[in-house]
Amino acid sequence: MQVTTTVEETRKLVKNWKKEGKTIGLVPTMGFLHEGHASLIRRCREENDIVVVSDFVNPTQFGPTEDLEAYPRDFKRDSELCESLGADLIFHPEPKEMYHDPHAYVSIDTLSDTLCGKTRPIHFKGVCTVVSKLFNIVAPDRAYFGQKDAQQLAIIRKMVQDLNFDIQIVGCPIIREEDGLAKSSRNTYLSAEERKAALCLSRAVKTGQEAICKGIKAEEVLSKMRAVIEAEPLAKIDYVSMVDALDMQPVESVEKDVLVAMAVYIGKTRLIDNFSYEV
Amino acid sequence: MQVTTTVEETRKLVKNWKKEGKTIGLVPTMGFLHEGHASLIRRCREENDIVVVSDFVNPTQFGPTEDLEAYPRDFKRDSELCESLGADLIFHPEPKEMYHDPHAYVSIDTLSDTLCGKTRPIHFKGVCTVVSKLFNIVAPDRAYFGQKDAQQLAIIRKMVQDLNFDIQIVGCPIIREEDGLAKSSRNTYLSAEERKAALCLSRAVKTGQEAICKGIKAEEVLSKMRAVIEAEPLAKIDYVSMVDALDMQPVESVEKDVLVAMAVYIGKTRLIDNFSYEV
Repeated sequence: MQVTTTVEETRKLVKNWKKEGKTIGLVPTMGFLHEGHASLIRRCREENDIVVVSDFVNPTQFGPTEDLEAYPRDFKRDSELCESLGADLIFHPEPKEMYHDPHAYVSIDTLSDTLCGKTRPIHFKGVCTVVSKLFNIVAPDRAYFGQKDAQQLAIIRKMVQDLNFDIQIVGCPIIREEDGLAKSSRNTYLSAEERKAALCLSRAVKTGQEAICKGIKAEEVLSKMRAVIEAEPLAKIDYVSMVDALDMQPVESVEKDVLVAMAVYIGKTRLIDNFSYEV
Repeated sequence: MQVTTTVEETRKLVKNWKKEGKTIGLVPTMGFLHEGHASLIRRCREENDIVVVSDFVNPTQFGPTEDLEAYPRDFKRDSELCESLGADLIFHPEPKEMYHDPHAYVSIDTLSDTLCGKTRPIHFKGVCTVVSKLFNIVAPDRAYFGQKDAQQLAIIRKMVQDLNFDIQIVGCPIIREEDGLAKSSRNTYLSAEERKAALCLSRAVKTGQEAICKGIKAEEVLSKMRAVIEAEPLAKIDYVSMVDALDMQPVESVEKDVLVAMAVYIGKTRLIDNFSYEV
């Protein structure tokens, strides 16, 4: 496995692989890898000749009051995990390698206005921009994203379609701890007590999955889910919403494929979870 | 020479050429080709195995009160010219092939706020988006743009740098009529009387070039240029400005490389011209 820190050396490796006719899969990550990332890397390993993992805490997708500095990092552990999973390359740039006095950006309207986009107004602009940059640097045939960040996945799919990136986007299921908590690098912020409280998210998901069916009012599903979270004293709801699976706009009842998503503060830690329902 | 109208058939051709190890040059145009475009196509022909010309009047770069409908089109003539210049492919899509309910876009701050960006606030967002799309569809090694659209060229260069497009941007000199008028598809809008009046732009360029030198105040150069245009009764200045050649921000005196650019209405037709000065 190789490690690169510059765009130039990454491109050089990729170009050589392409010359040899090899297919390339990309798993974009912010590092501090967990089983969720591992599942993406494994899937990528199965479907491509070359597996590239990017490991970069992208500053432009954090708001000024968010946890950029605190975001957990452990490149040594990441790199051992990637090696053990058979990755060929980790691209691990410094912020200054990715951004020199940047002015151009990629963004998306409508899909980024709801859910996490409401609380994190610049987040998806940062995501679209860095993912476009990684796509242009690595030029993968396929790129792998977790369904855990469901709005991000929907946005990336639409961005790829709208901007004609010649890349297949592969969405992979949420990976959970044994007790149901969705795996997240941010789980590391939780105290023991908060860790227990955080189970209200996956419990709410389960409640929602049991309640949802074609034709039901969104509010019937969502109020049951909210009740589960509100029963937990350490939890504070950012949002619990039902949106159209494609355009991320709120729906009043289940008539088409939907995403039911939530963000909940457990103490100071903001966690997300979701499920999709196909009609 | 082949003609494609869909993204899919264009990609298929390009992929085959790439498999054969051929280099690809792209000349993005809005059609109604003139000698300025021809000079780009010739340069592209010299430097690449394959020459792709895109011929697409991009609706998203026109404001609601601008000349999208009136913009001149003559695909038959364009296609004969491209063939005679040795192009391999014209990509000539319909708007609906390029835009299906679009939400993602590419834009740029700072560089797009001045000069033409002031009068045409959505113009460069449309340009950045369509050029990104064409870059992703054609995946060229090199792309050719005229210095006539100097702000566009500076913006495309910065976009390529910021978003890590692996494409060399080649800027080509302004091509002029014998009497000095910069070639433009919009010259076709001019009446005989306006055609004569339009010479005030190139006269102002000449005046500016004669006046400019390192250390001079911008206002000294610009006021001389404005006087030339104001002497022409059919002309109305949109702007005559001196900006930093890289970030397109106004400068007060010539200390670094600068762009001196103007937009002038001749009757209802808005024409542009410019010159660069390197320190």
